[in-house]
Amino acid sequence: MKREDEGLAFLLKYENIAWYEKGAVRILDRRIYPVKTEFVTCTDYTEVAQAIRDMVTQSAGPYLAAAMGMALAAYQAVHANVSAKNADAAGICAYCEKAAYDLSHARPTTVEQMKSIVEGSLNVIKKYAGTASADEIVQAAFEYAFNYVNGNYKKYAVIGAHTADLIPQNGTVITQCFADTVTGTMLRSCKESGKNVRIICAETRPYFQGSRLTASVACDMGFPVTVITDNMCAFTMKAKNVDLFTSASDVITIDGHIVNKVGTFQMALAARYYDIPYYVTGTPDPKHADLSTVTIEERDGDAVLKAWDARITMDGVKGYYPAFDITPPELCSGVVTELGVYEPHRLADYLKDSKKRDKNGHLTEE
Amino acid sequence: MKREDEGLAFLLKYENIAWYEKGAVRILDRRIYPVKTEFVTCTDYTEVAQAIRDMVTQSAGPYLAAAMGMALAAYQAVHANVSAKNADAAGICAYCEKAAYDLSHARPTTVEQMKSIVEGSLNVIKKYAGTASADEIVQAAFEYAFNYVNGNYKKYAVIGAHTADLIPQNGTVITQCFADTVTGTMLRSCKESGKNVRIICAETRPYFQGSRLTASVACDMGFPVTVITDNMCAFTMKAKNVDLFTSASDVITIDGHIVNKVGTFQMALAARYYDIPYYVTGTPDPKHADLSTVTIEERDGDAVLKAWDARITMDGVKGYYPAFDITPPELCSGVVTELGVYEPHRLADYLKDSKKRDKNGHLTEE
Repeated sequence: MKREDEGLAFLLKYENIAWYEKGAVRILDRRIYPVKTEFVTCTDYTEVAQAIRDMVTQSAGPYLAAAMGMALAAYQAVHANVSAKNADAAGICAYCEKAAYDLSHARPTTVEQMKSIVEGSLNVIKKYAGTASADEIVQAAFEYAFNYVNGNYKKYAVIGAHTADLIPQNGTVITQCFADTVTGTMLRSCKESGKNVRIICAETRPYFQGSRLTASVACDMGFPVTVITDNMCAFTMKAKNVDLFTSASDVITIDGHIVNKVGTFQMALAARYYDIPYYVTGTPDPKHADLSTVTIEERDGDAVLKAWDARITMDGVKGYYPAFDITPPELCSGVVTELGVYEPHRLADYLKDSKKRDKNGHLTEE
Repeated sequence: MKREDEGLAFLLKYENIAWYEKGAVRILDRRIYPVKTEFVTCTDYTEVAQAIRDMVTQSAGPYLAAAMGMALAAYQAVHANVSAKNADAAGICAYCEKAAYDLSHARPTTVEQMKSIVEGSLNVIKKYAGTASADEIVQAAFEYAFNYVNGNYKKYAVIGAHTADLIPQNGTVITQCFADTVTGTMLRSCKESGKNVRIICAETRPYFQGSRLTASVACDMGFPVTVITDNMCAFTMKAKNVDLFTSASDVITIDGHIVNKVGTFQMALAARYYDIPYYVTGTPDPKHADLSTVTIEERDGDAVLKAWDARITMDGVKGYYPAFDITPPELCSGVVTELGVYEPHRLADYLKDSKKRDKNGHLTEE
């Protein structure tokens, strides 16, 4: 099978995101990259859940980590059974069901998307449990994870190409947080089509995903990249003649609201003020018709009182840390999906179009 | 003379801003406070200019530092003459003229305001040079600096009181960067009138003036204070029911444009989106009819690649650091001056009103 991470930055190679091998899941610690390049090694699936909760990896990372975590859970389940000389299919399934629940609930905002991945893995494990060997069960769960990420990259290669099409030659793109795979595939598409692009990254406090992750991917792939702090976005859009603002999304509701890393909304406001288009990448989520089913995660406020390691505030000062914000559809120029670009008010069309396609994206009717 | 810094936070006491004594100017290093409480000691006025350039102190700090720097220049001038047994009034004046130029030009954006202060000091020195003793000349320059800051605090006490009047009981105020004296006098007024106020500070990257300085002043003075990162402003305005956004200004042009720490503009945009009033404090500047005379200072981009001490980006990534931005008059609800609150489109009225008053603020005509 062709690996879809070819030509992408270090940070986007599967082995450098989350990878199951021999009873352990290895996760690149995105909290400290590129200051340090270190991996967290988990030998229990609950450690994977904890790593997701602790944001060792983020953006698309947690989904692969969860899928690889299911392979680890399968390993733990069959290993426990094998060592007890009591290969019990029901026991394996029960153990992995618990793992699926724990992994999908590691972060409140992404429960629904996580579920669809870990439950896919769970179905594979259930199918093999009782009939296949211990190794085969684990291998099946690993392959599920690999196919999941590889298929996802294939989809994001299409989204990246659609996004690249929206950038003018010699264009300047401002980004928020880390759009992960799409950042890489968008830039790979630009490179393939000979398009010169300059990237401006908002640093994205408190964890600096913009300056550490997005900037590193662009730099790794040979594009000129400039970092600004989060208070400079509006000024820079005008001063640096930004052509396009783009971000990924944690949730896109069917009525066109975008839930993404906090800061996206005020960047969209500034972009609108200057008539700069804002394109969000991602998949409108049929599980979220509107915002009523979305929980905005509030994280430990102490994180905002720190700059990297150092605490910089006086004792007695508190922090507030809403992890996401909500951009209303009227501030977004288009939702870039694997099926093309949709107006945020017409995402029902995306659902219709996607129903006409099979898992491989081929038309099944018309 | 009554000291106008009574009841204010540590950071706002004159001795903790910039202070001339015995041939040296001592400046609190606001770049590291409150993580560390350290002073930079200057024994040559060029070191004061360098400290201003290096942002050892900022906001209103540089003005007092420059005035105290003139006392130091006078000390250097008379000391050089005295030690040469050749008390030369022309030499003292020439030396201090050079100092006035160097101190006022330490930072490009504030040259005009700096000039009016150091030239006042220069006039005092010129008046005394040749007739008074060496000590008297230095003392006169020091007293000029003291009277300047004390008079300024008196004026800002009025502005602080006007701003406090705009806050509802149990209100929530969001701030940008560090409004310096006004932050203190506004909160002192709230305290005196029994008004409970909650302060939310945008941290203000890259130097964290919001989380380090504004939050410390509010905390020191006993108010509940919460810090957010600069990307959370828009979300927080809604989520925390913010009643008022207020900032100081580096320049307010007579046609109502506000030049202030970068980030102010996008906060004003967000405030307008939610119909939250934005009040800027300061003095409309007759030297700036419009933006044509304003230079936006661009600082060393490396600062944005760092979080406190640590560099957090990959080699090859560049930084961009515009220090200020411009908020257009239509995004501002009012300019709070010592004469009251003016609509940004009607600042000519402020000029008219201020011409009717003498230096002590008393009406001279009508």
